[in-house]
Amino acid sequence: MFLFNDLAQIELVDIIEFLGTIAFAISGIRLASAKRFDWFGAVVIGFVTAVGGGTLRDLLLDVPVFWMQASRYIWCTLFAFVVVLCFRKYLVHLNNTIFWFDCIGLGLFVVVGYEKAMALDYPIWVCVSMATITGIVGGIIRDILINEIPIIFTQELYAVACILGGILFSILSYLNVDLIIIEVSTAFFVVLIRVLATKYHLKLPVLKGEE
Amino acid sequence: MFLFNDLAQIELVDIIEFLGTIAFAISGIRLASAKRFDWFGAVVIGFVTAVGGGTLRDLLLDVPVFWMQASRYIWCTLFAFVVVLCFRKYLVHLNNTIFWFDCIGLGLFVVVGYEKAMALDYPIWVCVSMATITGIVGGIIRDILINEIPIIFTQELYAVACILGGILFSILSYLNVDLIIIEVSTAFFVVLIRVLATKYHLKLPVLKGEE
Amino acid sequence: MFLFNDLAQIELVDIIEFLGTIAFAISGIRLASAKRFDWFGAVVIGFVTAVGGGTLRDLLLDVPVFWMQASRYIWCTLFAFVVVLCFRKYLVHLNNTIFWFDCIGLGLFVVVGYEKAMALDYPIWVCVSMATITGIVGGIIRDILINEIPIIFTQELYAVACILGGILFSILSYLNVDLIIIEVSTAFFVVLIRVLATKYHLKLPVLKGEE
Repeated sequence: MFLFNDLAQIELVDIIEFLGTIAFAISGIRLASAKRFDWFGAVVIGFVTAVGGGTLRDLLLDVPVFWMQASRYIWCTLFAFVVVLCFRKYLVHLNNTIFWFDCIGLGLFVVVGYEKAMALDYPIWVCVSMATITGIVGGIIRDILINEIPIIFTQELYAVACILGGILFSILSYLNVDLIIIEVSTAFFVVLIRVLATKYHLKLPVLKGEE
Repeated sequence: MFLFNDLAQIELVDIIEFLGTIAFAISGIRLASAKRFDWFGAVVIGFVTAVGGGTLRDLLLDVPVFWMQASRYIWCTLFAFVVVLCFRKYLVHLNNTIFWFDCIGLGLFVVVGYEKAMALDYPIWVCVSMATITGIVGGIIRDILINEIPIIFTQELYAVACILGGILFSILSYLNVDLIIIEVSTAFFVVLIRVLATKYHLKLPVLKGEE
Repeated sequence: MFLFNDLAQIELVDIIEFLGTIAFAISGIRLASAKRFDWFGAVVIGFVTAVGGGTLRDLLLDVPVFWMQASRYIWCTLFAFVVVLCFRKYLVHLNNTIFWFDCIGLGLFVVVGYEKAMALDYPIWVCVSMATITGIVGGIIRDILINEIPIIFTQELYAVACILGGILFSILSYLNVDLIIIEVSTAFFVVLIRVLATKYHLKLPVLKGEE
């Protein structure tokens, strides 16, 4: 009975956040293992990938850092670590599944980032910035720590998906659409862009250097 | 009429900040293009180069982050991006002009950083630290993101110019010199050191390693 | 007489902090010198190594950044720089001594980090996180700045010592042990783990990559 009550309080958004955090953490842990990090290093890279964007967002907004308010982000990361540790030989076959989790997680991160800034009455362009920072900065810190150029700057419309998602949120918000519909549309839109961009290898043009 | 009123409100310091931000952003965007970043990546590197130092300063001082209060820093970065995109073949001939903008921007950043800490009644050495952080940290983050050792640690008296500028500010301040004179003198002094150091290739000694 | 009074106010913890800060700064300055940084670069790397962890901790906890409250951390770094500059040929013979300072400093950093979070009524796992962040993040930023993969992720039980120290602190705290005894035990425990791990080359397992 108590268990059911408790389960009833777990909402859809919690499950999405859970899957997104795990997908982000797995991407960090796999890259760390490719660089032969030790177990602790892999967990740190996974954790930073999952929470890095939200941490910078909360510092910039001067609100309490989200992962210090609840231990579940650390548990998610440890769970992701155990998954990689036990199933690393099979993970390559799960790439498609993990990609979907990652897209869905990104969609959620964009919504959460936008709403946190909106709740503080920031103008639209700050909300879009915070949505984008929440989505991409974890991956940037991950790549800095493993000493690679951040893949985000060359990947298929990753950051663009965050920005366009944020812009859609602000348009629907201006039109007084119901909040839950805005949230779902924005997250779905981000996922759609990422999926299409990856399928058709859509990329932003490269900025050519001076000779 | 309205236009004129509006223009009258743009002060010299705004124009200097505009030029400095653009010069810093251009330096980031050009380095990003040399690494074949996509358009978004180039804009991010440009933006981070321009606002990174002030962002860390504001986080350390626990004051609202400056670029979240006004959108002009993002517009400056986008303008810098368009300039690099359209005129990249001619930019090399403008190196001298861009260098001057960069020096003048650095001078202004030092003054702004010093005054922000001073307004919070911090001791002199914190004000000098914040002036230096405002001047150099954007370039450091830029170099980390493009996976290079920060050039600041080997460049001609770049950080030293910030420190000496901060010290001059504190001396003139102690002598009760008029604020506007302090500001102009400090910025001019920073520009002077940078120009002389670049012209005569003045550098700090290298710290020799242990064999 | 005045001198003696003043000396009497310097407590054991200040001396330990002094030694720890210098040991951390020396490690940064030596690595910077191996990369042929200039004097300023070496001092910055030394300073960041010594205060980087505590700075991130204070930003996350939203408390005033510790090194901006007292100038002694900058003096310690400058002292460490002079030591490396003057005695670099003999430093290699002092490796053992510096290693001890580093261990003792780490032990103290763990205690300080734990207590700062505890004073704000954070749960145990946040206190342990802050203890670990205080201990390891300075070295991570140092390695990012010199463009290397952070050694922490492969070193002998460095981060593990911080985590275990934090856990011991929380257990003793739960048992209502006297605070001073908790502090000394925790610091001693961290030192012990580091010394044993280095002596016997104890490391965490490497996370093997996918082929």
